[in-house]
Amino acid sequence: MLVQRYFDSRQKLVEEALDSYLVPPAEGTSSIHDAMRYAVFSGGKRLRPILLISTYEMLRNRKNIGTLKSLLPSAVALEFIHTASLIHDDLPSIDDSNERRGKPSVHKKFGEATAILAGDALLTKGFEALTDIKEKKKALTSINILARAVNTRGMIGGQAVDILAARKRIRINVLRFIHLKKTGALLQASMDMACAMYNAEENTAITLGNYALNLGLAYQIIDDILDEVGAFEFLGKEPYEDSRNRRSTYPSLIGLEKSKKTAEKLLDDSYKLIKSMPNNDILVEFINMIKERLP
Amino acid sequence: MLVQRYFDSRQKLVEEALDSYLVPPAEGTSSIHDAMRYAVFSGGKRLRPILLISTYEMLRNRKNIGTLKSLLPSAVALEFIHTASLIHDDLPSIDDSNERRGKPSVHKKFGEATAILAGDALLTKGFEALTDIKEKKKALTSINILARAVNTRGMIGGQAVDILAARKRIRINVLRFIHLKKTGALLQASMDMACAMYNAEENTAITLGNYALNLGLAYQIIDDILDEVGAFEFLGKEPYEDSRNRRSTYPSLIGLEKSKKTAEKLLDDSYKLIKSMPNNDILVEFINMIKERLP
Repeated sequence: MLVQRYFDSRQKLVEEALDSYLVPPAEGTSSIHDAMRYAVFSGGKRLRPILLISTYEMLRNRKNIGTLKSLLPSAVALEFIHTASLIHDDLPSIDDSNERRGKPSVHKKFGEATAILAGDALLTKGFEALTDIKEKKKALTSINILARAVNTRGMIGGQAVDILAARKRIRINVLRFIHLKKTGALLQASMDMACAMYNAEENTAITLGNYALNLGLAYQIIDDILDEVGAFEFLGKEPYEDSRNRRSTYPSLIGLEKSKKTAEKLLDDSYKLIKSMPNNDILVEFINMIKERLP
Repeated sequence: MLVQRYFDSRQKLVEEALDSYLVPPAEGTSSIHDAMRYAVFSGGKRLRPILLISTYEMLRNRKNIGTLKSLLPSAVALEFIHTASLIHDDLPSIDDSNERRGKPSVHKKFGEATAILAGDALLTKGFEALTDIKEKKKALTSINILARAVNTRGMIGGQAVDILAARKRIRINVLRFIHLKKTGALLQASMDMACAMYNAEENTAITLGNYALNLGLAYQIIDDILDEVGAFEFLGKEPYEDSRNRRSTYPSLIGLEKSKKTAEKLLDDSYKLIKSMPNNDILVEFINMIKERLP
């Protein structure tokens, strides 16, 4: 299938770039380099890098395939920083997750201290990678977009509210805020960074950013639903974790049926935002992939 | 005294800049913003920012004082990232320090989860601040210098080896490596960043970087000595922490006298590197300040 081939080829590009930015395994005398590699190559789908690349290709109308190389610093930065957030999220004092994608989490395998430092190092390496973007203006804009998306107004802000909300029954708007910031901010940044590399108009960036925010929120709601119905094979982790941790979820707050409807509505909204854009087939495919996870 | 007045005025400049980069306390509805302010304003001496500013002023021959404003993003970035490293270092799984500068450490006051995120946020905010440097080339160079100094080849690398070395008797060369990376890398970056802002020649940057590395190593050896002799008032933390943690120190490996001699030699070497530079009085003062800590 053509779409699958597209995803495979772009993923391969990203995997190779990630590998080239990390210390080679042979040199890895210190376990922090091993921990970083372990975390980065633990079966991630590279959603954010592929979102970035395919958005850029859509904007460029698929011409000049050769220039995809210029996107690799951005692709690597997004994945490193996403990975850093997963490592720190899994720590005992935060989510206390022993597994991630069916394998021991970083702190389980390398110890807590190394996990904290490996997260710090990947976060730093993300920003370092962006200094490789050749055009200085684009490099600085990308660093600024990413830093703001990661910071307390973005991803880390979502995590901070999530921590305050843990073991409490919260309002649906607070849960929505957490999902939008924890997951949405970095997805939105992927689109923004693609637009910065293409010099897209601001309106386009805003529209695509909203597409990604809707997509991210839908993804999280479906995650909540899958956890609730105990679909282990879709989650790649133990189900019922949320209820075990007495965490508020969409199903626990508004019920299973209304949660499904909300997710479907968000995916429809995503589609409306991009339906008139030429060459939108990959962005449509992202919507379909997430819709397919709905049980 | 003139030198003291210089330090006070530059410190005031840095304090105001740090304040302006953080979320105002009134807005701080989430405890992560409180934790970040608490950590940043806990009595730090702003060594790295003042080193950066005074080096730049030395290079500029004290002309055009007005342009110090252009250094504030770099000054803030250094202090945010230094603070982030202290927060994470103090965590139970790393140094397990309950106090820092005579006050509860961040995780003691705000909990471990918030401490981890506050460190991540300050690390990110450091890189974000550097995007405010007006000249794009200088901004990117500064981001690259800082990221490399922080990364596994620098500060985090030193911390990682420190963790592997904990509770073991290590060789003096390994301890030297740890001190040079954990402390020296960021001091060296302060000089490099000052040189980047001034467009200094590479030779000058290398010489000043070595000055800072020697200074940092001497500082750490004296810290080891003060911990050994139990000088609470100089340390601002409980003494004997190293021996309690069964950590290798310069005195434990080569004895008190030889440690003192090594520190003195390093400070002399520092002096030799800068003695022929015009307007070097503040850099000389840094050497003297550290020498005065020697018991």
